[in-house]
Amino acid sequence: MPFLQNAWYMAGWADEIEPGQMIHRKLLDQPIVFFRRTDGQLAALHDRCPHRFVPLHLGTLKGDAIECGYHGLQFDCTGRCVVNPHSSTIPAAARVKPFAVAEKDGIAWIWMGEADEARHDLLPDFSRLHAAPLNAASRGYLWTDCNYKLVADNVMDLSHADFLHADSVGGGAFTSAKTRVEEHGDDVHITWECRHDSAPPAYDRLMPRPGQPVNFHTEVRWRAPGIMHLDIAITPQEDPGSEGLRTDNAHIVTPETESTTHYFFWLTRRFQVDDEEINSRRQAIMYNAFSNQDKPMLSEQQRAMGTDDLFGLGPVLLPGDAGAVRARRKLEQRIRDECAAASRPAAGAPRVARA
Amino acid sequence: MPFLQNAWYMAGWADEIEPGQMIHRKLLDQPIVFFRRTDGQLAALHDRCPHRFVPLHLGTLKGDAIECGYHGLQFDCTGRCVVNPHSSTIPAAARVKPFAVAEKDGIAWIWMGEADEARHDLLPDFSRLHAAPLNAASRGYLWTDCNYKLVADNVMDLSHADFLHADSVGGGAFTSAKTRVEEHGDDVHITWECRHDSAPPAYDRLMPRPGQPVNFHTEVRWRAPGIMHLDIAITPQEDPGSEGLRTDNAHIVTPETESTTHYFFWLTRRFQVDDEEINSRRQAIMYNAFSNQDKPMLSEQQRAMGTDDLFGLGPVLLPGDAGAVRARRKLEQRIRDECAAASRPAAGAPRVARA
Amino acid sequence: MPFLQNAWYMAGWADEIEPGQMIHRKLLDQPIVFFRRTDGQLAALHDRCPHRFVPLHLGTLKGDAIECGYHGLQFDCTGRCVVNPHSSTIPAAARVKPFAVAEKDGIAWIWMGEADEARHDLLPDFSRLHAAPLNAASRGYLWTDCNYKLVADNVMDLSHADFLHADSVGGGAFTSAKTRVEEHGDDVHITWECRHDSAPPAYDRLMPRPGQPVNFHTEVRWRAPGIMHLDIAITPQEDPGSEGLRTDNAHIVTPETESTTHYFFWLTRRFQVDDEEINSRRQAIMYNAFSNQDKPMLSEQQRAMGTDDLFGLGPVLLPGDAGAVRARRKLEQRIRDECAAASRPAAGAPRVARA
Ligand code: FES
Ligand code: FES
Ligand code: FES
Repeated sequence: MPFLQNAWYMAGWADEIEPGQMIHRKLLDQPIVFFRRTDGQLAALHDRCPHRFVPLHLGTLKGDAIECGYHGLQFDCTGRCVVNPHSSTIPAAARVKPFAVAEKDGIAWIWMGEADEARHDLLPDFSRLHAAPLNAASRGYLWTDCNYKLVADNVMDLSHADFLHADSVGGGAFTSAKTRVEEHGDDVHITWECRHDSAPPAYDRLMPRPGQPVNFHTEVRWRAPGIMHLDIAITPQEDPGSEGLRTDNAHIVTPETESTTHYFFWLTRRFQVDDEEINSRRQAIMYNAFSNQDKPMLSEQQRAMGTDDLFGLGPVLLPGDAGAVRARRKLEQRIRDECAAASRPAAGAPRVARA
Repeated sequence: MPFLQNAWYMAGWADEIEPGQMIHRKLLDQPIVFFRRTDGQLAALHDRCPHRFVPLHLGTLKGDAIECGYHGLQFDCTGRCVVNPHSSTIPAAARVKPFAVAEKDGIAWIWMGEADEARHDLLPDFSRLHAAPLNAASRGYLWTDCNYKLVADNVMDLSHADFLHADSVGGGAFTSAKTRVEEHGDDVHITWECRHDSAPPAYDRLMPRPGQPVNFHTEVRWRAPGIMHLDIAITPQEDPGSEGLRTDNAHIVTPETESTTHYFFWLTRRFQVDDEEINSRRQAIMYNAFSNQDKPMLSEQQRAMGTDDLFGLGPVLLPGDAGAVRARRKLEQRIRDECAAASRPAAGAPRVARA
Repeated sequence: MPFLQNAWYMAGWADEIEPGQMIHRKLLDQPIVFFRRTDGQLAALHDRCPHRFVPLHLGTLKGDAIECGYHGLQFDCTGRCVVNPHSSTIPAAARVKPFAVAEKDGIAWIWMGEADEARHDLLPDFSRLHAAPLNAASRGYLWTDCNYKLVADNVMDLSHADFLHADSVGGGAFTSAKTRVEEHGDDVHITWECRHDSAPPAYDRLMPRPGQPVNFHTEVRWRAPGIMHLDIAITPQEDPGSEGLRTDNAHIVTPETESTTHYFFWLTRRFQVDDEEINSRRQAIMYNAFSNQDKPMLSEQQRAMGTDDLFGLGPVLLPGDAGAVRARRKLEQRIRDECAAASRPAAGAPRVARA
């Protein structure tokens, strides 16, 4: 299945792209080079010189342009060739595809469709996470060798936590919870709610009184292609009106290729926000869970599935799949719509009547 | 060419599968998980959860069942789902393919066809090897990067020993021997017999009087898919009635994939059966021959042949190929029969007349 | 695109093939084994036994023949089987394809077409380089993971030196030069000529008076499939009649596969020919340029192009491409001619009239 083109994808953390430097990353199977203009604005180009096809990131940044490292053509941030050292003219075909990019909430976003059709009004909002104090936030990145939809499924079916992460963020709460799946426009929201005899192990020690029954509430809000908020609230049953433990998290996946994924996660919390030790312990626990538990499982899942489509393999479906299946259907519908639009003649284009 | 399904394959040494543990191995391109029931009996399942296709061996053994490590479905040793923690019902489709397994003579055998059609009467007999005293036996395993039929050819055309293993088990005896190939039902027997001026180097030092002429007799008994007995008898010509040096060996190959093989070998001898040093020296010699002489040759042979069929490449055939060619023909015929049977309507099935 | 068959390719340096030893190399996707006959003459055979397809180089050299390491067939340097230890007759099909080889100017050349059609009159001439004193010459080899035509393009469009090797052999001279491309029969000659304000960095320090303006003259003479002379002459403008710095170099590429190349280079100079230090410094500079600048660029170029043909990708063409494009067109025409000839019935062959 092709990738959704007309959408914002997370390209990386904004501060990964430092002034005067290029970084390159493959997204949706396309090599892309990122840099900052001299005014600090982000820019992104297809990472391929139209002369001999070498990556532009092997060249040199000259002001707002990249000089190709092989024969010195220069391309500005709109992809136009602005210097040809070998001739007084610039070949008309010497153009590189530019991408619309945006920096928001500390994230570098890229619109993979036509740059001039980028919908800046649709940029995701992670301002709450961005506002978290230094010691209440941590970020991470995992290159994951599976299709991006498998990572999204993983986040959208949190019942797996009770088995794969039983020692940390599981503990039975998800399995015993009532799950609700709702569509809000283009988004899918999944809620797990239950009363449980204690908080999951990784949270229990942080409760006012460990080992006591809690009210447990978790919500995932998915948006295509794979942008997810994950909010957790755990409150003591004996003090249901209290703030309890609340965390606001982001799980964002961007396809590298059909079978590999850039997985970004961002963890913030609203309790004891200045406690550096809690922060680093939480980071360590989550990093361990993602890299030593989720990632090997996802990687083996991908190996087993190969290039087959999930539904084509006829999976047994369980109640926990409801949200992820809804999201997949929405994503697939948008991709089909996009493909159909691409093959439709543009308005006003001449049509040939078939007699 | 597909693999023969209705046959016993060696899955491993029985003691590789320890109580309370799972081991997983790919056989005939299928991932399989092995474990022991609480009563000690072997069990084997397709190593793939029908929910999200992750390997079951990443889960946990719970009594006679495996709990999937991702979302906790449990499957017993017949492949039936016995626990679904997410619902009060168990989806009818939640089934894993079970395999018939048998433990005999210290070997774990698996029947790759339908479990309930497994022919226990056809289990190979290695009781003589199993009965060998501790210091008269050694076993080995080599993962080999070639098709299993190339390893079988290697054992069935022992004339190679005179060239590839000239310094150990060759020495000219095979090349000068009279070879006889006979079919015994489904089996192929190959015999090499000659009078030679001395025993092969690895045996000569063990003869009563080294450097003396010997009668040399070797027999390979092949059974599909790749199960071979190899018996050697070397007796001094000056004392032809003596027992001489006799060894009984097994060479058993199980396809991992079309181009990789699990190669098991088991070496026993009937002389000086309590001599630990002879045993370990023999093991070292053979292991060196297999891993440093046969394996690289087989690996290069596979690289050269690629996915081509041996006969499709039009090989020059030599006298030594007779047995291996006979065995290949028998194996191919059985596979063709099996494929034909699979595509025939079952007895009593409705037939549609073609007018 | 297939490879040109009826041409001499460089197989290696002649002294790589030592008496009594075999070396094997894949050329044009074919495994080849090289050795010397007892009279010292080079010989080359397809590196594959016609019995079971193992590489002959795993065997043993016995006089002028190779004994296969698996079952002992022996093949002489014409590819004829001369010993079959398993029978009194030699199967007629037991033949290995022989290749015509020639040793000239310290290079081992191989004709990849039919051995008896090899055109010894077409052997390239590198006698001038071969005659260079010990301390005026150095040789090198780089395995390069790109198509051989990309390496040839690299040498034929030296304008890249001003960007990729700005710190050594570039410096702006090529970009400011007048370029001339000429065909001389089957060869393509490319000349760069200019007056420049100084010699390129790697040469400037060797000039009689560094930092002074120079006349700069460079010529590449290409011959199919990828054999290139590269002559450089740099003379002080203040003394244009002087000898200046002259170097005669060879860049020779032989395809290993469609996407990997054996790249041989040979650097000689005509100035200060006994200065060992200049020689080793020049070798170090060039080796650094080729392996740390050209090779990564070529490797990324290949990755970007994949299996696509250069022209099929619609490259923007720059003035510097003129010579390389001319050479590619000539090479492609020769390959097309060769393919057409191969599919034409031979003279005198019966023709079937199509009514
Ligand atoms: S490849 Fe970029 S300028 Fe030549
Ligand atoms: S993948 Fe096994 S229970 Fe979900
Ligand atoms: S493979 Fe060469 S003689 Fe058998």
